Amino acid sequence: MAVRIGIFGYGNLGKGVELAVQKSPDLELVGIFTRRDPAAVTTLSGAPVYAEEALERMTEDIDVLVLGGGSATDLPGQTPAYASLYNVVDSFDTHANIPSHFAAVDAAASAAGKLGLISCGWDPGMFSLARVYASSILPGSEAYTFWGRGVSQGHSDAIRRIKGVLDARQYTVPVPEAMEAVRAGKNPELTTREKHTRECYVVAEEGADLDRIREEIVTMPNYFSDYDTTVHFISMEELKAQHSGLPHGGSVLYSGSTGADGAHKHVIEYRLDLDSNPEFTGSVLTAFARAVARMRAEGRTGCITVLDVPPAYLSPLSGEELRAHML
Amino acid sequence: MAVRIGIFGYGNLGKGVELAVQKSPDLELVGIFTRRDPAAVTTLSGAPVYAEEALERMTEDIDVLVLGGGSATDLPGQTPAYASLYNVVDSFDTHANIPSHFAAVDAAASAAGKLGLISCGWDPGMFSLARVYASSILPGSEAYTFWGRGVSQGHSDAIRRIKGVLDARQYTVPVPEAMEAVRAGKNPELTTREKHTRECYVVAEEGADLDRIREEIVTMPNYFSDYDTTVHFISMEELKAQHSGLPHGGSVLYSGSTGADGAHKHVIEYRLDLDSNPEFTGSVLTAFARAVARMRAEGRTGCITVLDVPPAYLSPLSGEELRAHML
Repeated sequence: MAVRIGIFGYGNLGKGVELAVQKSPDLELVGIFTRRDPAAVTTLSGAPVYAEEALERMTEDIDVLVLGGGSATDLPGQTPAYASLYNVVDSFDTHANIPSHFAAVDAAASAAGKLGLISCGWDPGMFSLARVYASSILPGSEAYTFWGRGVSQGHSDAIRRIKGVLDARQYTVPVPEAMEAVRAGKNPELTTREKHTRECYVVAEEGADLDRIREEIVTMPNYFSDYDTTVHFISMEELKAQHSGLPHGGSVLYSGSTGADGAHKHVIEYRLDLDSNPEFTGSVLTAFARAVARMRAEGRTGCITVLDVPPAYLSPLSGEELRAHML
Repeated sequence: MAVRIGIFGYGNLGKGVELAVQKSPDLELVGIFTRRDPAAVTTLSGAPVYAEEALERMTEDIDVLVLGGGSATDLPGQTPAYASLYNVVDSFDTHANIPSHFAAVDAAASAAGKLGLISCGWDPGMFSLARVYASSILPGSEAYTFWGRGVSQGHSDAIRRIKGVLDARQYTVPVPEAMEAVRAGKNPELTTREKHTRECYVVAEEGADLDRIREEIVTMPNYFSDYDTTVHFISMEELKAQHSGLPHGGSVLYSGSTGADGAHKHVIEYRLDLDSNPEFTGSVLTAFARAVARMRAEGRTGCITVLDVPPAYLSPLSGEELRAHML
């Protein structure tokens, strides 16, 4: 019997989940839930659209509810709230607040006999898995994460808030020399500036002071001041034509050694090269939604993360099939 | 309390496990078990050495027994036999026979209330995990595995069996153009010959017919005839000086797409670059031995593989620590 999936929140991530569920014959999309007027929402798949309130009465129709909201304001309230009604999966990615978010979801889900999986996606998510596997295999190894080349939504938004900016797109770019030094097992010590550069494509208002905008960007604390940042002013047409995608990716690298005096070096790399950040993230959430349904069916309740999921549970294949063909 | 580890078989892999246990403060090495005369074996760590027979009476002293034997003749008998006495971990890597080996270990371990984990290491092992994660996230994606540059023991042995050969080392080498095409998302169809080449370093007997040896190597069915193979005749001194290591590694690559008409391409790569194949493999087996002890303590019995292990169980860190620092 198909696992019945609901999606709450129909932005880029929700659409990514929708596309992934469509490609999974063992999953069934029950509906999209939105805070907008359902009549104003048209879905890619033709799935029915419901108002958020419908979630109160559809608990018998959905096995796993995937939350497509954002970490800043949506998920801190939504995930614990809906974990008391549904098995849930979210992509909460505010690293510093993961422990408190975990505790809130665990309390709600445990009390309701539901299972919630938080902080799913690729970072946190697949990159977290890469870190735990590699650090467990090679204790004492050096860890590196490089992001990009990819669009950072947070940095793009920060540029858009500058006076005189109409639109902007910011790419995080790993420094090739730094990555190659890590891949070669040199265990370099790298500053923030040595690991990534930032490329900004900015559409300015007509007559705006471009030098002032550029200066405000490159000196912006937290976002840009610790990086070598380049700013390109382009037209709105060029932005739409050349920079409308949301590519991303990166590498988790662990460099360690074994043997007498650490004579033998080992480098482990997990690398993603993604044309669409939200569609890939949605694909990850969908695979873990399958696992959540299985783990709940086996009696698991409370809150878990990707680190708690036996990998075989992500696959539609049986244990026998996996052992015969994938091992 | 430390997890008490025993190692049966003290070749390269057993030594790799020994080194890894030494680097893990939460694991304790109880002893090395060997079919050789224990008095003739000196261990790297100073751990005590016992004859195989001692395993009959030390069941209360060991939490997990790691089997360092080979897949051809040792493990098919040893793993089921010792799974009736101990929780066990092996590196059984004869892919076609994994289902029957699994069944034999499952029967023995289940009957004895023990837990056995088979086919651990990097392929099968970490590469299997990469396959299951990637194929679950990107259904319908193309899968590629490249091995090397690394020493293939099986191919080296095959050359040594040729008349007139004193010693040999064979490197499996991935074809760079093929890897780059896959990394670029081109989904190429690749023949065996297009994916890897084989480099052989051969020490011949004095006066041996080098042309005949070369011809026997490059035409050898299964091992070399489907590959572009180069043969270099070198001295024993050069072999010892330049080719005494056992490096290996490779990449598992999945290339798939999402979105309307598969508009967005995604490439997932898991890559290993290893100076010492047996020491890295031993490190993997050791991390999974930790997980086996935990899963058995939770009541799990029978046979499992790496695909059944929640990743968090590999780490000495607690769930709280992992969520706070690794997620």
